[in-house]
Amino acid sequence: MLVTETSLRNFTKDVFLAMGCAAEHALLAADILLRADLRGIDSHGVARLIGYVRLWEKQRINTRPNIRIAHETPTTATVDGDAGLGLVVAPYAMQVAMQKARQYGSGWVAVRNSNHFGIAGYHALLAVEQDMIGIAMTNASPLVAPTYSTERLLGTNPVCYAFPAGKYPPVVIDMATSAAANGKLEIAQRAGQQVPEGWLQDAQGNSTTNPHALKSGGALLPLGSTAAQGSHKGFGLAAIVDLLSGVLPGANYGPWVPPFVAFLDPAANAPGQGIGHFIGAMRIDGFRPAEEFKAHIDNWIERFKAARTIEADQHVIIPGEPELQAEQERRANGIPLAEAVMNDLNALADKFGLSKLS
Amino acid sequence: MLVTETSLRNFTKDVFLAMGCAAEHALLAADILLRADLRGIDSHGVARLIGYVRLWEKQRINTRPNIRIAHETPTTATVDGDAGLGLVVAPYAMQVAMQKARQYGSGWVAVRNSNHFGIAGYHALLAVEQDMIGIAMTNASPLVAPTYSTERLLGTNPVCYAFPAGKYPPVVIDMATSAAANGKLEIAQRAGQQVPEGWLQDAQGNSTTNPHALKSGGALLPLGSTAAQGSHKGFGLAAIVDLLSGVLPGANYGPWVPPFVAFLDPAANAPGQGIGHFIGAMRIDGFRPAEEFKAHIDNWIERFKAARTIEADQHVIIPGEPELQAEQERRANGIPLAEAVMNDLNALADKFGLSKLS
Repeated sequence: MLVTETSLRNFTKDVFLAMGCAAEHALLAADILLRADLRGIDSHGVARLIGYVRLWEKQRINTRPNIRIAHETPTTATVDGDAGLGLVVAPYAMQVAMQKARQYGSGWVAVRNSNHFGIAGYHALLAVEQDMIGIAMTNASPLVAPTYSTERLLGTNPVCYAFPAGKYPPVVIDMATSAAANGKLEIAQRAGQQVPEGWLQDAQGNSTTNPHALKSGGALLPLGSTAAQGSHKGFGLAAIVDLLSGVLPGANYGPWVPPFVAFLDPAANAPGQGIGHFIGAMRIDGFRPAEEFKAHIDNWIERFKAARTIEADQHVIIPGEPELQAEQERRANGIPLAEAVMNDLNALADKFGLSKLS
Repeated sequence: MLVTETSLRNFTKDVFLAMGCAAEHALLAADILLRADLRGIDSHGVARLIGYVRLWEKQRINTRPNIRIAHETPTTATVDGDAGLGLVVAPYAMQVAMQKARQYGSGWVAVRNSNHFGIAGYHALLAVEQDMIGIAMTNASPLVAPTYSTERLLGTNPVCYAFPAGKYPPVVIDMATSAAANGKLEIAQRAGQQVPEGWLQDAQGNSTTNPHALKSGGALLPLGSTAAQGSHKGFGLAAIVDLLSGVLPGANYGPWVPPFVAFLDPAANAPGQGIGHFIGAMRIDGFRPAEEFKAHIDNWIERFKAARTIEADQHVIIPGEPELQAEQERRANGIPLAEAVMNDLNALADKFGLSKLS
C-alpha cells in the first residue's frame, strides 16, 4: 500500500504526541522516521514505531527527558539522554557538536542513557548543511558474533560519515558493520527466501542461509563474513563503534546493550546506562576552504562514476546515491508500506484513538 | 635469518642518515620500521627500506623537509609534509593533534604532501600513552577496485583506532580496508601458494586465487569481497579514509595517489600534493574519568576473551593482542628476515658503505 509522505508524517507525529512527547520532539522524531522511509531504509522508518511504543509502555523510554550535558571540554562532551528517544537525544548531541565545531573547529559528543536513534545518516547530514563533515554511530542490541565465537556480543553497530559536495549530492557512507543489516534479514523472512552465504551462522557457528537462524541461537556475521576474508576487521569496526558509543560515555556495551524488543528485559548486571551514541562534526574550513574541498569532492565523484565496470550495465555506486534516488521517487509517488507494518500502524491508531491511514 | 633488534635498528638508522636525514628523523624513522618488524607486520618494516631509498633517489622523498602547519583552528590543522618521509611527517602531525587535545579536548590533523607512513598503529599509540584515544589513517597507491569495477581506484587505505586499557594492553584496531592487505599477497607470492577466494579479482573482474593477479591488471577487493557479502561497505570505508586523508588536506586521492614503487611515475594530472594522512587524538577525560574508562575497557576485554567459541581450541582475539605477543617474542629472540629482504639490506649496505648485518 502506498501512503503520502504528509499523511504518514502526521500520523507518526500524532503517535509520539499520544506517548506524551513535547510537540517539537514529536515533530523531530517523526521527521527522522519519515526520512528513513523516504530514503528506502524501510527497516528504520515507521516499521519501528510500534517498537518505540512498546518500550515506552515498559517504561524504558522517557518521553519527557531532561537531556543534559554531563561533562564537557571546549570540543568534547558527554550527554545524558535521560532514557529519552534516541530520535531526540541524537539531534541534541549533534547540535552540541556543531556549536563546538563553530567555535573551535570540531566537536565530539558521546551519549549515554539513550535509545535507538533511527538512521545514522539523518544526524550526520545535519552537519553537512553547515559545511561540516558529519559523523554518527551507535551501538545496538547484541546480534553479531565476533570471529571464532558462537555468542552474540555486538550489535550491527552502524557508522555514518557524510561529506558535502559541490554540484552533486553529499557523499554519505551509512553502513552497519555486520555483513548484512538486520533489516535485510527481515525482508528475506517476510518473502520466505534464503539469504546469501556469509550473512549468518547457526548456534554451532556453521554457515547458514536460513533467515530465521537468529531465533534458534544463531548470529549475524561481522563484515568480512569469514576469518579468511577478514571478518576480524568487521569485528574490529564493531568494536570501535562499541568503545566510542558505549564505554566512552558510560552507556552499556557489548552483550549488555539493552534489546530493542520490549519482550526481552535488559541485563540485570548492566555496566552502564541505556544504549550509547558517538556524534561528531568538523568544519571543512578548519582544514581548507570549503569551496575548494567541494570542487575536489565533485572531481572524486566524477572519477568514480566514470570507472570501467565488470558488466556493461553496471556502474560504481557513489555512497548515498541510491538513498537519494529513493527519496526523490517516494516524495513524488508515496511511500510503500508492507502489510505487516500497516497492521501495526492500525493497531496504534486503535490504541491511541487516531484516524487510520488510508 | 634472525637478527637482533639493536643491530637492525642501528643499521636502519644508518641508512636513513646516509640518505641525508637529520639524526632525530633517522632515529624516529628507524623506530617505526622496527616497531612493525617487532609486531610481526613484516610487510611494513625494514622490507620497505629499499623502497624508501629508491623514492629518495627519484627525488620523490625529501630527507630535509620543512614540515609546517599550513592552516589551523584551535582543534584542526592541515600539515604540509614538504615531501618528507611519512615516517617523520605523521608523528609531527600526531604531536600537533595531541597538543590541541591537551588544550581543547581533541585535535585533528589532515596531512598533505607526505609519503608512506609505516604502520598506522605506531602513530595512534602515541596518543594512548597520554590517556587519549589515538586515530591514524592514510590513503595509499591504488590497488583496490570498488564494487562492480575493474579499475584500481583506491589504496588498501588502513585505519587505526587505539584505546588505552587498565591492567591489559591497549585495544588496537589497525586494519587495511581491503579484504586482505598487500603484504599478505607478497607472502603467498614468495611461498608459491594460492590465496583464499575473496581477496582478488582478475583484469575482467572474475574472482581469482592467483596471488600474482595484480601484475596482469587484477585488483584487490574491498573488505566484504563480493556485493552479496557487503563489499560496498569496504568500498565505503576506503572512501572515508580517502576523503579525510586525501581530499581534506589537499593531497592526492583515488587513482591519483602516487605509487609507492619508484619505477612507476606519479600521475601527470595529479589533483593534489603527495599522499595524505588523517590523524586524531581525543582526551579520555574529555568524556569521563580516565580510570573509570580503563576499568570498563578491562571489563570489555575480559568479557570478549571469555566468549564461547566454535572450536574448543579457539578464543576471541582482542584487537592488538597478536601484535603484542609478536613484539614480546621478537624482542627476546630476534627478528626473522626473509632472504629477499636480507639481500635488499645487503645491497643498501654496499650502496652506502655500511657494515652488513650478520
